[in-house]
Amino acid sequence: MGPIAHESVPAGAGRAHIAARYAAVRDATEALAAPLSAEDQSVQSMPDCSPTKWHRAHTTWFFETFLLARFQPDYRAFHASYGYLFNSYYEAVGARHPRPERGLLSRPGVAEIARYRRHVDGAMAALIAGLGAADWREAAPLLELGLQHEQQHQELILMDIKHALSLNPLQPAYQAPPPPSPARAAPPLAWQAVAGGLRQIGHGGAGFAFDNETPRHKVWLEPYRLASRLVTCGDYLRFIEADGYRRPEFWLSEGWATVQQQGWSAPLYWAREASGWSVFTLAGRRPLDPAEPVAHVSFYEADAFARWAGRRLPGEAEWEVAAVEAGVALDGNLGDRGRFHPEPAPAGDGLRQMIGDVWEWTASPYTAYPGFRPAAGAVGEYNGKFMSNQMVLRGGAAVTPAGHLRATYRNFFPPAARWAFAGIRLAEDS
Amino acid sequence: MGPIAHESVPAGAGRAHIAARYAAVRDATEALAAPLSAEDQSVQSMPDCSPTKWHRAHTTWFFETFLLARFQPDYRAFHASYGYLFNSYYEAVGARHPRPERGLLSRPGVAEIARYRRHVDGAMAALIAGLGAADWREAAPLLELGLQHEQQHQELILMDIKHALSLNPLQPAYQAPPPPSPARAAPPLAWQAVAGGLRQIGHGGAGFAFDNETPRHKVWLEPYRLASRLVTCGDYLRFIEADGYRRPEFWLSEGWATVQQQGWSAPLYWAREASGWSVFTLAGRRPLDPAEPVAHVSFYEADAFARWAGRRLPGEAEWEVAAVEAGVALDGNLGDRGRFHPEPAPAGDGLRQMIGDVWEWTASPYTAYPGFRPAAGAVGEYNGKFMSNQMVLRGGAAVTPAGHLRATYRNFFPPAARWAFAGIRLAEDS
Amino acid sequence: MGPIAHESVPAGAGRAHIAARYAAVRDATEALAAPLSAEDQSVQSMPDCSPTKWHRAHTTWFFETFLLARFQPDYRAFHASYGYLFNSYYEAVGARHPRPERGLLSRPGVAEIARYRRHVDGAMAALIAGLGAADWREAAPLLELGLQHEQQHQELILMDIKHALSLNPLQPAYQAPPPPSPARAAPPLAWQAVAGGLRQIGHGGAGFAFDNETPRHKVWLEPYRLASRLVTCGDYLRFIEADGYRRPEFWLSEGWATVQQQGWSAPLYWAREASGWSVFTLAGRRPLDPAEPVAHVSFYEADAFARWAGRRLPGEAEWEVAAVEAGVALDGNLGDRGRFHPEPAPAGDGLRQMIGDVWEWTASPYTAYPGFRPAAGAVGEYNGKFMSNQMVLRGGAAVTPAGHLRATYRNFFPPAARWAFAGIRLAEDS
Amino acid sequence: MGPIAHESVPAGAGRAHIAARYAAVRDATEALAAPLSAEDQSVQSMPDCSPTKWHRAHTTWFFETFLLARFQPDYRAFHASYGYLFNSYYEAVGARHPRPERGLLSRPGVAEIARYRRHVDGAMAALIAGLGAADWREAAPLLELGLQHEQQHQELILMDIKHALSLNPLQPAYQAPPPPSPARAAPPLAWQAVAGGLRQIGHGGAGFAFDNETPRHKVWLEPYRLASRLVTCGDYLRFIEADGYRRPEFWLSEGWATVQQQGWSAPLYWAREASGWSVFTLAGRRPLDPAEPVAHVSFYEADAFARWAGRRLPGEAEWEVAAVEAGVALDGNLGDRGRFHPEPAPAGDGLRQMIGDVWEWTASPYTAYPGFRPAAGAVGEYNGKFMSNQMVLRGGAAVTPAGHLRATYRNFFPPAARWAFAGIRLAEDS
Repeated sequence: MGPIAHESVPAGAGRAHIAARYAAVRDATEALAAPLSAEDQSVQSMPDCSPTKWHRAHTTWFFETFLLARFQPDYRAFHASYGYLFNSYYEAVGARHPRPERGLLSRPGVAEIARYRRHVDGAMAALIAGLGAADWREAAPLLELGLQHEQQHQELILMDIKHALSLNPLQPAYQAPPPPSPARAAPPLAWQAVAGGLRQIGHGGAGFAFDNETPRHKVWLEPYRLASRLVTCGDYLRFIEADGYRRPEFWLSEGWATVQQQGWSAPLYWAREASGWSVFTLAGRRPLDPAEPVAHVSFYEADAFARWAGRRLPGEAEWEVAAVEAGVALDGNLGDRGRFHPEPAPAGDGLRQMIGDVWEWTASPYTAYPGFRPAAGAVGEYNGKFMSNQMVLRGGAAVTPAGHLRATYRNFFPPAARWAFAGIRLAEDS
Repeated sequence: MGPIAHESVPAGAGRAHIAARYAAVRDATEALAAPLSAEDQSVQSMPDCSPTKWHRAHTTWFFETFLLARFQPDYRAFHASYGYLFNSYYEAVGARHPRPERGLLSRPGVAEIARYRRHVDGAMAALIAGLGAADWREAAPLLELGLQHEQQHQELILMDIKHALSLNPLQPAYQAPPPPSPARAAPPLAWQAVAGGLRQIGHGGAGFAFDNETPRHKVWLEPYRLASRLVTCGDYLRFIEADGYRRPEFWLSEGWATVQQQGWSAPLYWAREASGWSVFTLAGRRPLDPAEPVAHVSFYEADAFARWAGRRLPGEAEWEVAAVEAGVALDGNLGDRGRFHPEPAPAGDGLRQMIGDVWEWTASPYTAYPGFRPAAGAVGEYNGKFMSNQMVLRGGAAVTPAGHLRATYRNFFPPAARWAFAGIRLAEDS
Repeated sequence: MGPIAHESVPAGAGRAHIAARYAAVRDATEALAAPLSAEDQSVQSMPDCSPTKWHRAHTTWFFETFLLARFQPDYRAFHASYGYLFNSYYEAVGARHPRPERGLLSRPGVAEIARYRRHVDGAMAALIAGLGAADWREAAPLLELGLQHEQQHQELILMDIKHALSLNPLQPAYQAPPPPSPARAAPPLAWQAVAGGLRQIGHGGAGFAFDNETPRHKVWLEPYRLASRLVTCGDYLRFIEADGYRRPEFWLSEGWATVQQQGWSAPLYWAREASGWSVFTLAGRRPLDPAEPVAHVSFYEADAFARWAGRRLPGEAEWEVAAVEAGVALDGNLGDRGRFHPEPAPAGDGLRQMIGDVWEWTASPYTAYPGFRPAAGAVGEYNGKFMSNQMVLRGGAAVTPAGHLRATYRNFFPPAARWAFAGIRLAEDS
Repeated sequence: MGPIAHESVPAGAGRAHIAARYAAVRDATEALAAPLSAEDQSVQSMPDCSPTKWHRAHTTWFFETFLLARFQPDYRAFHASYGYLFNSYYEAVGARHPRPERGLLSRPGVAEIARYRRHVDGAMAALIAGLGAADWREAAPLLELGLQHEQQHQELILMDIKHALSLNPLQPAYQAPPPPSPARAAPPLAWQAVAGGLRQIGHGGAGFAFDNETPRHKVWLEPYRLASRLVTCGDYLRFIEADGYRRPEFWLSEGWATVQQQGWSAPLYWAREASGWSVFTLAGRRPLDPAEPVAHVSFYEADAFARWAGRRLPGEAEWEVAAVEAGVALDGNLGDRGRFHPEPAPAGDGLRQMIGDVWEWTASPYTAYPGFRPAAGAVGEYNGKFMSNQMVLRGGAAVTPAGHLRATYRNFFPPAARWAFAGIRLAEDS
């Protein structure tokens, strides 16, 4: 997952406003880490995941490297080795510590990383307040990029710790169970028709967007219909009970091979116990609610489910056009209410659950939009270089930070990945 | 690589005509295998490759399974186990021998497989001559599919044996060196402009096409330019000499990881010797000709080369629209002249080398066209189930059989594959 | 498996006698290969196995490298690359083709290898006839070593092709079924007591021995008893039926891990079918005879069986002392009668089946005898460098060539190896 | 590494004495863990290593499982899952958490594990004080075994954390540098002659020993000489400079393969920097002292060094007979002085450095002594089941706890292991 500042912070935004936003985003990271012990923050459960404390340090390194080292001439790096330890994948910035070994770094410890954050935050406050106007024009978009980047890592903190805790036989919880969600059945599935024709997608207006959302461009769409709500756990159980995981005719060839190799027979975090199906959540393991959206499925499973259901996944352009046309709200993430798990769809008309519960797999491989140009410099490595063997997801999840979503947002993961909060919305030709 | 009969053989084609075509295609396979010893025909150099004798048997199994077993009530299978041994990947047809173990099958030997082919060819001749009209309407498209399928395997026979022979320290040749190609320098690179707008691609007319070429559908294209000729070995050498394989900024992230893991520093089959660069061909190893098109590169290398050159790869729609607009000839494969290696581009105007020298990597992931429906039955597994983690190639290679190509043809390979005869054509925005 | 000439050929042996012996051993190799097709001779079923034609060439290379190149000044190597292709593991002789890729060498073909053998055989005949007396004293022991080496590879040819054919779903046979062995039940197990004390083992007299059998040296043994016959398939079935493969208490830790990883539940080549247990032999698959010795078990299985039976495996010194004391015959291999599979023990008194049916796993890791010195030169790599992580086997198998065995012979394999003809004899403390 | 109580605690030892010994051993573990942060205690750097906190819990589980659960009828397990989490390899006790995933257990945290230890220590104090005499006779040997077991894990705590810290680019230290060791050159190498003949080895007297040290038994030895001191870093540097790591003639075949695969060119923890060789120690990285014993070599390296030096490694019987004959002191470990790194040999006569600096690789595979019987019950899994593919080491290291060593002690590791504090003493035939 990665971004580049396409549009800077609002032109009219004063420095004080930005300083406050900086502090708020940085504090939100610390608040997410707060329930976790030093040991929790150090564990790396697989190469794709990183320890919490690494996320805390890496987001800090971003500001140190791309803002302070460049715009603050007398800035002294907090530690000579942190550039090596906390660079994620920026080849242009230099060598870096191997990703699969992040969990081996018992030091620096969480206390030292807290000091690192405070050091950089102090320097950033001074930079925001004092930078000359000319430099500021260059720095401000990078600062906004750093904040958007940190928000992405806030989601990763929750995704990654969920995976780590799930592997612990004690099944420990990240958070106390939130108040129960409204007990309701899933509303019946309806189909939202969208007209085809020559449409436009991509980011083209004001406000921040990552480079991969640009340029805005024309696409031709045939008429189609989108499901009014997400596929539920109950829907998905019927696929399992219909031997979905044992019938190759529903699967892409690589998906079927993955099912065999990994021994998949249900979504990640599901377990079949004597008393019925359960699911591991950030509040611990609990009985499966059939009305909830299914989450933690791979693209292969989403695609197989859709074939079994006689439907298909939407293309990313179909998703975006429908979302814009429907004017879906871009806020109201469940996480805003401390609920890091999707809820049953509300009753009502039209498209629901488009934002803020689970990311939605699309049928679209992640590629460059026509005319795409990566940003200049090292931050140009943010998005473009991942454009192979990944699929686009749209929407946003319960663990995505508030204010981080857009209808044009393109998330992406390899088709076999399951630790993201990813689910399924069906589509069909009109 | 795989197909499905979309359109049957020409409606007017008489049975005698079809019987002759059947015999010609089948004989061509045997002619390709003829220079190879029993041992040559049995070797499997990697899981992606198959022994020659397996190709000979598998293509035969296709006719036995999809034609004879279905339409010839009294047909007796040649051998009870061949259905297991020579099924490639058709899950619906039953269990099959594991692909990576095809090279372990010393039996049946080549003589036995020749008998198998004759047995099936005899039964097929009877079927073609004697099938009732109603059955024939169903059988004829499957027969045509079987022939197209066999042609695909003719190409694979050459690709696979080239790989196997290349690993032998003796560097043995498949064929005697053909007469030298016309000694000529590569013509200068020119750019062919193509207008954008709402265009159509895909197969929509008469004649055979695989299911993945359908349906014909609208796409929106911005104006673009296509290189008039393929990237040459000389062009590619400049990329190598510019440290292209050591500079991450040109590479997709997975491409760069592959370069490190595999230790790539040049295309497959190239070797740097004291006397200069050499290349392994089906006629043995010989000095590299800088005027020839570069071949046996992966998508990652093609993409990195294009970035280094300040250009990009064409989308598959861009390739097809340009080819159709230019009216490129669909015959004249180099292999028709017994030359299984690409030649320097001829002088002249317009798009050259579009067909019959090397497949051309496009920027397009291999996905379903809007409205795509796989064929019914087991042959529906032919193409659709491979639509993940593969890139589309267009054109056709020196080893592709004559008469097997179309402007709408979609070949596909994983982005790291290098044993296909695949090269590079550049594109740029207008 | 490997050797070094410790003692030369009999001092009194005339050149004609030696020429005849050379021809006989070389012809025996060709006779073993004769039933195999070109494809059979080229297949390599796992890295530990080699193609038949490779064995034929490698044994030839041994004479070319260690005899002809050294003692025949005008000898011209048959092919410049064969030194690279057919060196097995002699680091001192130079680089070599990677062992796991022997199956990729479709060329040289079997006909070429037959020519290679004739070329070397002609030169060897000239060398034997014409070498001066001083050179002959040096050459004769190497020649004998070459013949012993070739005999070892005769056994490997049968072991390796059995493994390859067993993986073919057609279950093809190397040979037609021999006449049935005498139908008899296994005689009851008796125990042969052997006195302990200060004994001697190792080769110390005249005649050929490999370097690893020397020097003859003293060992202290406590009194012990050896089983009068091998463990039978029937005995072993009781271990299986007692859940032997599912009870960790019988297994070494690494053995248990191997059982889990490999999914072992019976000896190699056994299969449980609806009609009962069957076993794959060089004459094809046939019903298991419970009276036969169990074969194709690993050391781990032999050791676990012994624990389950409340006994133990003998040490190699115990085996040798008992064999010498009992004066077991060193000939009469079953293979001499064209029977490449062990038979039920004959009735009678004393130790039976010590030689010529299956190798017997001992409890002894393969290490150097006190005072061991490897031979000088490249042939010094024959045995000593394999002295880690292997276990000693004693006796000799139905596939071991006649005249190749001694009571002091030390065979060795890694403890997890199962493709050798290896079985079990129990021991216990007196 | 593992043990079984062969001899119980001294018959005359009073309960108070034992309670004090229990407390002292348990406290020593906590003292070793004290310098480590919560994160340090949680990291697992490779499957063979375990986190510090796991060692603290596992040793506690041993007392809980083998003492409290058996002899204290009303004992309540501290936590229902700890039997699963902290069983190391006792199959008879039940399922267990996979070893390679110990580093994924962020919970229980270090504070919880401290509570676990206190809980068990309290119950053990009550058991020691109150157990009836009959039970005590059974319990006392198990208690002593538990303490010896805990001492083994004290050494593992230091070995494992050294490995983990060494992988951290910050190269953090476990302890502050101790006062410098006496600056002295290594004394010249002398040879201690030992008479051969019929000797005895193994534990046979009073006092504790592990089961693998028994029974005491006769061995025949030829006369030999042992080096008076360990091989130094300076000695080993000469091997490196003589291209020892690039010359296959010194290496066992598996050793050579390991050198190639792992890219070894020096002992573990050595680094060649611009300023010369350095070595990582528990007090951080510092320049290599050529007078110190070489440590952290594999058996393969020890064996190759010995061949290069024209000598050999001693057999374990040779080591033990010489140590007993010389009456080497069994105390004085460097670790007693807070020095977890070997020092140069003192001047003087006779065998030096036999105990307390580095374990010494022997030429002996780890096998059962004649007449060996594992202990009854689950503790019988302690030693016997590891008797394959391991080599015996003798002596004891700077990190071995005081009072834990005996001349009959048999340590063992796989021949490629390097993270133990293991070095080299040469031997030769007289």
